[in-house]
Amino acid sequence: MVRVAIIGASGYTGQELIRLLLRHPHVDITALTSRKFDGMSVSEVFPVFSGEMDLRFVPPSTGTVCDTSDVVFSALPHKVAMDMVPEILERGKKVVDLSADFRFNAPEVYEEWYCGHTCSKLLKEAVYGLPELYRDQARNARLVANPGCYPTSIILGLAPLLKNKTIDPQSIVADSKSGVSGAGRTVAMEHLFCEVDQGFKAYKIGQHRHTPEIEQELSLLAGEEVVISFTPHLIPVNRGILSTIYSKAIKDISQSELIAAYTEFYEEERFVRIYPPGLFPNISYVKGTNFCDIGIQFDPRTKRIIVISAIDNLVKGASGQAVQNLNILCGFPEGSGIESLPIFP
Amino acid sequence: MVRVAIIGASGYTGQELIRLLLRHPHVDITALTSRKFDGMSVSEVFPVFSGEMDLRFVPPSTGTVCDTSDVVFSALPHKVAMDMVPEILERGKKVVDLSADFRFNAPEVYEEWYCGHTCSKLLKEAVYGLPELYRDQARNARLVANPGCYPTSIILGLAPLLKNKTIDPQSIVADSKSGVSGAGRTVAMEHLFCEVDQGFKAYKIGQHRHTPEIEQELSLLAGEEVVISFTPHLIPVNRGILSTIYSKAIKDISQSELIAAYTEFYEEERFVRIYPPGLFPNISYVKGTNFCDIGIQFDPRTKRIIVISAIDNLVKGASGQAVQNLNILCGFPEGSGIESLPIFP
Amino acid sequence: MVRVAIIGASGYTGQELIRLLLRHPHVDITALTSRKFDGMSVSEVFPVFSGEMDLRFVPPSTGTVCDTSDVVFSALPHKVAMDMVPEILERGKKVVDLSADFRFNAPEVYEEWYCGHTCSKLLKEAVYGLPELYRDQARNARLVANPGCYPTSIILGLAPLLKNKTIDPQSIVADSKSGVSGAGRTVAMEHLFCEVDQGFKAYKIGQHRHTPEIEQELSLLAGEEVVISFTPHLIPVNRGILSTIYSKAIKDISQSELIAAYTEFYEEERFVRIYPPGLFPNISYVKGTNFCDIGIQFDPRTKRIIVISAIDNLVKGASGQAVQNLNILCGFPEGSGIESLPIFP
Amino acid sequence: MVRVAIIGASGYTGQELIRLLLRHPHVDITALTSRKFDGMSVSEVFPVFSGEMDLRFVPPSTGTVCDTSDVVFSALPHKVAMDMVPEILERGKKVVDLSADFRFNAPEVYEEWYCGHTCSKLLKEAVYGLPELYRDQARNARLVANPGCYPTSIILGLAPLLKNKTIDPQSIVADSKSGVSGAGRTVAMEHLFCEVDQGFKAYKIGQHRHTPEIEQELSLLAGEEVVISFTPHLIPVNRGILSTIYSKAIKDISQSELIAAYTEFYEEERFVRIYPPGLFPNISYVKGTNFCDIGIQFDPRTKRIIVISAIDNLVKGASGQAVQNLNILCGFPEGSGIESLPIFP
Repeated sequence: MVRVAIIGASGYTGQELIRLLLRHPHVDITALTSRKFDGMSVSEVFPVFSGEMDLRFVPPSTGTVCDTSDVVFSALPHKVAMDMVPEILERGKKVVDLSADFRFNAPEVYEEWYCGHTCSKLLKEAVYGLPELYRDQARNARLVANPGCYPTSIILGLAPLLKNKTIDPQSIVADSKSGVSGAGRTVAMEHLFCEVDQGFKAYKIGQHRHTPEIEQELSLLAGEEVVISFTPHLIPVNRGILSTIYSKAIKDISQSELIAAYTEFYEEERFVRIYPPGLFPNISYVKGTNFCDIGIQFDPRTKRIIVISAIDNLVKGASGQAVQNLNILCGFPEGSGIESLPIFP
Repeated sequence: MVRVAIIGASGYTGQELIRLLLRHPHVDITALTSRKFDGMSVSEVFPVFSGEMDLRFVPPSTGTVCDTSDVVFSALPHKVAMDMVPEILERGKKVVDLSADFRFNAPEVYEEWYCGHTCSKLLKEAVYGLPELYRDQARNARLVANPGCYPTSIILGLAPLLKNKTIDPQSIVADSKSGVSGAGRTVAMEHLFCEVDQGFKAYKIGQHRHTPEIEQELSLLAGEEVVISFTPHLIPVNRGILSTIYSKAIKDISQSELIAAYTEFYEEERFVRIYPPGLFPNISYVKGTNFCDIGIQFDPRTKRIIVISAIDNLVKGASGQAVQNLNILCGFPEGSGIESLPIFP
Repeated sequence: MVRVAIIGASGYTGQELIRLLLRHPHVDITALTSRKFDGMSVSEVFPVFSGEMDLRFVPPSTGTVCDTSDVVFSALPHKVAMDMVPEILERGKKVVDLSADFRFNAPEVYEEWYCGHTCSKLLKEAVYGLPELYRDQARNARLVANPGCYPTSIILGLAPLLKNKTIDPQSIVADSKSGVSGAGRTVAMEHLFCEVDQGFKAYKIGQHRHTPEIEQELSLLAGEEVVISFTPHLIPVNRGILSTIYSKAIKDISQSELIAAYTEFYEEERFVRIYPPGLFPNISYVKGTNFCDIGIQFDPRTKRIIVISAIDNLVKGASGQAVQNLNILCGFPEGSGIESLPIFP
Repeated sequence: MVRVAIIGASGYTGQELIRLLLRHPHVDITALTSRKFDGMSVSEVFPVFSGEMDLRFVPPSTGTVCDTSDVVFSALPHKVAMDMVPEILERGKKVVDLSADFRFNAPEVYEEWYCGHTCSKLLKEAVYGLPELYRDQARNARLVANPGCYPTSIILGLAPLLKNKTIDPQSIVADSKSGVSGAGRTVAMEHLFCEVDQGFKAYKIGQHRHTPEIEQELSLLAGEEVVISFTPHLIPVNRGILSTIYSKAIKDISQSELIAAYTEFYEEERFVRIYPPGLFPNISYVKGTNFCDIGIQFDPRTKRIIVISAIDNLVKGASGQAVQNLNILCGFPEGSGIESLPIFP
């Protein structure tokens, strides 16, 4: 059994980590930190865990966390994460960080879109925790930077096309739609039920912070610098991201060749499901699971390829992928604790 | 008072026509047809109208309809509409048709995407009922072809850009999202509550029948043949369409110039609202109304212009626009009966 | 035209008053107060009113309000209302108050459930603004206390049974369910979209402040002191209250006699709709309207009568009823400005 | 490993059985029957199972089913179930039946509320599959009649009060609210998304078929014949039942004594969670799980006890409880395959 601590455990990603890890066959949760809920029991904060867990939240402290655990999940916001993570690493613990702080190769990109970086030397060491692309590097890592939710859906959706040089990398338009839990549990008027329900809107058009993270990985796949249009939208559902991704084909390709290329690319992947021709993902088909479902359509009228990818933003887009990274770090079977099937309806 | 009949009145667009016309200051509803609900009273079929109306549905018959009315709304499905409309016109009535049957200038386009056309000579005469573009032609028309819901949102969203030659017309990607009432009241498993709620999906990718209708009007605006990518999606809400429309700018233009151009283009329009910089539409801001709300963003990184347009698919996207066309046909103030404000939340 | 001011206009009931009054044929809105949004324009705070209104919010001040208006709606919270209303009355204005401050006949009841009362002498004068019961008194009132949302649905649901002495008044159980807008626009974690959607719960069981208001009016109808069980619940919808009300019949009565008694009791009422046998209300059949829909079932197995009543909590349960009271106060036709039909779906 | 067949596997309870059994450590699913989807693969019918299962649906046939399995789940509708179950038992298989056909002790009650019974001799043998009350009898049963969803929530909610003679059994009012999946996957206009969303209604008032099932078990607990008022309602969510249950206390009892009595009654129960004073269940706290959550409030003003119980109608209210019964029948740990925690949000 590996002993695991979660720092910043009082948001939705923290809660989702608890849900998954409580049923993980090789994990003991030993500490949960929260400044806000310090001293309260888990089931007071999250009644869903009534009768399942005795732990109380403690204030964030490197000492407490490191004394009790082997691996630490950080679900802190960006900027706060980089204040705590270096010390935890120094004390010999492994870290899976769910913030943006260690996702970038170039500190100047982080600084342009986020804020100043106080331990940029760790950027070189940190592994971008998308197992489908970086599994081998993650195996021996000390620090895994868990990808953002939108980036996970878009990068997995485009990787085969870019790797195979099927499309013009400069023609990419990614139109993404997310459930509301992507905004976290922070209390804001715009996320009140009445403001969201029966609504649908775009937000941060051309300006969302996940843009450079997506572009970094697409550029590496394409072998050239890629700039994309990325527009996030808010769907009135709790969970799920669906990305509709447009790009121009640069060679003649048939629908079935496309699907065959995806199937081959993800052949060994437990959590990527490629849909047969004419079938397309729905966020309700991945709810509660670590799957990324992908459907592909070639449009001969416009020579555009349209890729649809769907994930649960709290699982494959956050906590589930973090557990997948834990499994890789610790040598557990990669699906441990994240094998459950979609809750539908 | 003008006497109005509605044929095919038992679906959601029929119901919405009844809702609007019952409060229209210059209209009497004189006949409602429905094969399915023949003989039943309106309030049995639509309990929302309890105590408001005595009419009973009658079977569709040109005679009954023409004997009692001056203007006829047809809310029949495509193909069925073109079987009844010609005779109604011959009997001297004016018709606002909500199907696709009279929207196309070229019969061969209709026949490619729909089915054979049995009265294609009427296509020349029919006016495409988008008042913002064809108001003058509609004033003296006998037959108005009420636009589709997706086309209304996309054409109004792009008209200023194409008219002003601001964009490359071949670069358009229209990613649209619709509430479920767009699918009508037809009983199908895929529209059961449990199949839709908490879900989100794309459908008919690259193949939706509104594509040629949109392309016809964009081509006329651009002065060249335009081919677009159009992807509809299903949002788990009752009403509303939001279209996110991408295109490449072909000249240098600032955000404020763009908004000024839209404001000028729609200056006289009662039902188009242009948003100030940084604000964007939400389908919940137009619910129950005839408004088309438009927000515009220029992205200097990609030179793409992103237009967001929002309508209520049952009002501006169908029945409200049909009433607007009635008002134009009859010389009533254009907002008669469709002035109500959004229901929010 | 009567000039109307709204104080405390930045919540959902304030917004709903604006929506209704902007289309009221005999009203000009002359002032809107909000401490929070002081100086902002209405359409910045409520984008739904874009292009419809130029007013800016001003801070609450008796002077400003009284100088510009003939009638004042107060949408302030309880306790705050009673600080401003007396002065407005002294300056000769009429007031429709939407808080609980003037709904009680006995100050001690208010003080037990709310807080100390600072102008209890006004309680005698204030008219409880349920037009179906107190229309005559309201005609010449200076101060109308607009009823609570739950009380409106329950009192209208039970009035015929109590007035006709059909039931044991001590046997009443009122199980009510409300949409989330009943909680107002106040920002609280428990009303975040993700906390509410896909959920359903009871709250304030046996302790909700509307209990004594309901009991006051039921006692007057019954001619004896009535104590009830009242349990509110939260439905994941924006609008609507449905109350399921159980009571024991004390005499033999048939289903059709019951419905006839209701129909007779509400014969002259524009906004109460009695359903035929076997049909029952749905909150979606009253959405956006001032209707109270009522269905009745007698259960011979238990000798209980089950009444179902449905209203839109923001219209008949708040702002629509307030406009109805304005119409009565000013001698306008009672339906002015509140005649619109349900938005369905 | 026990080999399990599911007959009538194409509805929501069938699908939920598949979801749970695919991850059950001691079960192999060997046959799935469906007349409607005969020959289709599971993942065509339920895309959520893509990549998880190869089985194809076969037509319902006792032979096929019995040849391949040790235990049979029947998810057939009532009446259809009793045509197949007897033969399966004769062939030596054990059966967990999810219909109403074997839930009643008295055939005449079944016949009054449902239809004629063709194998009423099995009623004596069948065990009512509510493990919290009938675990011992189920251990050696051949035929377990899995309880209805509403009955599960109401019987578990009231058992301690009736067993301890705390309440007047004739004073019970059960006001229940269910998500839409309770209606199954049958295609009907009233369950279309647009008819349900933003709505809330009561249905089958005083006439729902679960009434006699509830009364049978409450009568056994009370030791006298109990007649109740039971009103089901439809919540616009996918899953969950919350019952608000009113009854008159017949002795003085404090809130804390009440909660202590419940805690003691359910002390050994893995799947019943009693809430501390002041906290109450929410259907979103049990989503996807086999829990029944219970909160209790004593109202000194009315001497009524209000019990709130919440379950997931597809899990503890159907398929999860069926798996719990399988575990009991087969001697597996009772939580096998149904241990997962709530998906929230």
